[in-house]
Amino acid sequence: MSISMYRLTVPMFQRGLASLKTYLDKAEAYAKEKNIDPVILVAARLAPDMLPFSGQYQRATDSAKFTLARLTGTDAPKFEDNEKTLDDLRERLAKTEAYLASFSTQALEGTETRQITLPGRNNTVLSGDEYVATFALPNFYFHVTTAHAILRNQGAPVGKRDYLG
Amino acid sequence: MSISMYRLTVPMFQRGLASLKTYLDKAEAYAKEKNIDPVILVAARLAPDMLPFSGQYQRATDSAKFTLARLTGTDAPKFEDNEKTLDDLRERLAKTEAYLASFSTQALEGTETRQITLPGRNNTVLSGDEYVATFALPNFYFHVTTAHAILRNQGAPVGKRDYLG
Repeated sequence: MSISMYRLTVPMFQRGLASLKTYLDKAEAYAKEKNIDPVILVAARLAPDMLPFSGQYQRATDSAKFTLARLTGTDAPKFEDNEKTLDDLRERLAKTEAYLASFSTQALEGTETRQITLPGRNNTVLSGDEYVATFALPNFYFHVTTAHAILRNQGAPVGKRDYLG
Repeated sequence: MSISMYRLTVPMFQRGLASLKTYLDKAEAYAKEKNIDPVILVAARLAPDMLPFSGQYQRATDSAKFTLARLTGTDAPKFEDNEKTLDDLRERLAKTEAYLASFSTQALEGTETRQITLPGRNNTVLSGDEYVATFALPNFYFHVTTAHAILRNQGAPVGKRDYLG
C-alpha cells in the first residue's frame, strides 16, 4: 500500500489549477476595486529577470501536461504562450483541465517504472516515480506558488486557503 | 506498485531543506557583495501582511516535522520561532534534518491509512495518504518557493536550479 501514480499526478494538478483559477477571479476583483487595468497584473513580476504572472501560468500548465504526456508516452496539446489577459489565462487553464480529465487511473498504471528523459538537464533519465517526486511535483508547485507570490506582492488579497483549496 | 509514504515525505523534505540551505548561502554572498546587513534579507517580505523570509523557514520546517510526527503518532521537537540571523536559520534546518534522519522506511509503513486530524481546519480528518497529497506536500513547497520568491524580489541571484536541486 502506498500512493498511486494517478493520485500523485492528475488530482494534484487539478487542485493546483483550481487555485490558479481562483487567483484569476481575485485578480479581476482587485483590479476592479483599484480601478487598474488587469493586464498590469498579468504582466507583473517579482524581479525584472523573472517570468511574469502569465509566465507562471504557462509553466504550471506545461508542467502538468508534459508530466502526463511523458509518463504515458503520448503527445501533449501545444499551447502558444501568447496569453495577455485574464481570460486568455482562463482559457489555458480550461484546455489543460480538459487534457488532464482525459487520463484514467488505468492510463497511469505501471508508469512508475517508465524511463523518462528530462529535457535540458543533460538528458538525465529517471524512472517515472522518481520523475514525479523529484521534478514534476516540486516544479508544478513552484509556479503555482510564484503566481500567488506575484499577486500578493501587487497587493491583491489572496491567501493560503486559496492555495491549499 | 506505486510510491511509498517514506519516499513521499522524508526525501522530499530533505531535498527542500537542502534548497533552503543553498538560499542562505546565496543570501549571505549577496549581502556581502551589496554591503548590506544580512538580517535585512532575513526580515524581508513580499507584502506587509505576509510572513518574512525567516517565517517561511519556520513554516517549511514545521511542515516537515509535523508531517512526520502526525503520520507516526509521535511528538515533534519544539522550536521557538525566534530566528533572527542566517545562522539561526541554518541551525533550525540542521535540527529539522536530524529529526527527519531519525525516520526509517519501516517507520512510515502503514501510515497511509492512519487518520490524521488537521488542526485549525474544523478538525478535518484525512487518511495519511490524502494528508500528504492534499496538505503536507503543497504546504511544504509553498514555503520553500516563497522563501525563493522573497530573495528574488530582493534582487538576490537565486535560480530554478537552486530550487529543484
